[in-house]
Amino acid sequence: MTTEELLLTTALNSWKLVIGRFDKGIEPLNDEQLQKQIAPGKNRLFYLLGHLTAVHDRMIPMLGLGDRLHPELDEVYIANPDRTLPDPLSAADLKKAWTEVNSTVTAALEKLTPAEWLQRHNAVSEEDFAKDPTRNRLAVFLSRTSHAAFHSGQAVLAK
Amino acid sequence: MTTEELLLTTALNSWKLVIGRFDKGIEPLNDEQLQKQIAPGKNRLFYLLGHLTAVHDRMIPMLGLGDRLHPELDEVYIANPDRTLPDPLSAADLKKAWTEVNSTVTAALEKLTPAEWLQRHNAVSEEDFAKDPTRNRLAVFLSRTSHAAFHSGQAVLAK
Repeated sequence: MTTEELLLTTALNSWKLVIGRFDKGIEPLNDEQLQKQIAPGKNRLFYLLGHLTAVHDRMIPMLGLGDRLHPELDEVYIANPDRTLPDPLSAADLKKAWTEVNSTVTAALEKLTPAEWLQRHNAVSEEDFAKDPTRNRLAVFLSRTSHAAFHSGQAVLAK
Repeated sequence: MTTEELLLTTALNSWKLVIGRFDKGIEPLNDEQLQKQIAPGKNRLFYLLGHLTAVHDRMIPMLGLGDRLHPELDEVYIANPDRTLPDPLSAADLKKAWTEVNSTVTAALEKLTPAEWLQRHNAVSEEDFAKDPTRNRLAVFLSRTSHAAFHSGQAVLAK
């Protein structure tokens, strides 16, 4: 493995660890347990799961990895706060979507070359990217890893 | 900048973003406001600040970057849960320690070459590292970045 490949494998491992820990907390919970709030008056676990699924699904086009799997989640779990709109999926279906989205993103990223990781992501213009080459795919990916860890820290409070 | 350097600059940016966001939330708070719990019966913001300072300080020897600045924080903010021992520092001094520790870690990491980033960290044996070369400095660093994001997600709930 080259130095670049090893750096990227390490970054992918960190993403898998964060996702895996969130998974482990959510997976055994049933529909009713997922309705629990992380703290009084705060988001439900169900909402966090929907939110992370939607945000990770949006990475697919943003990183040029293909077409989205679940665009229907954005309105409920990104555009609106919790308990504004009814949940469009059952707990079982949302868990399935979560797993599918993460597998799709991970598999596609594992195929990228180091040079492809450093290419522009689709939410930055060519002009802005020319000024700041750190606005690349890896930056989005690390930001989404931190974002998932951010909400994991909240999810554990529901225990 | 080489491909490796650009990958690592991107990773350092992600750390700076996470730390910067936590800073921004903590910095304007006075001693009394830092006593607030993130949720009823959960950790105080003060504890989270002490915990992250201690954990980041431990990175200094773990990554072979020098000697620790604040080993006195471990007993209170790592070995014990919140409200077990009295806080050893005032809010102002703890904030100062937090800033010093992060500046020290960041400055030292910015000097590492890509090959140095991929070296073994001091919490893994040579034998285990030979089996799994992803147990390198970058892995610890990304794990600490996720850890800081994890607790940031909790800290924002105190608002």
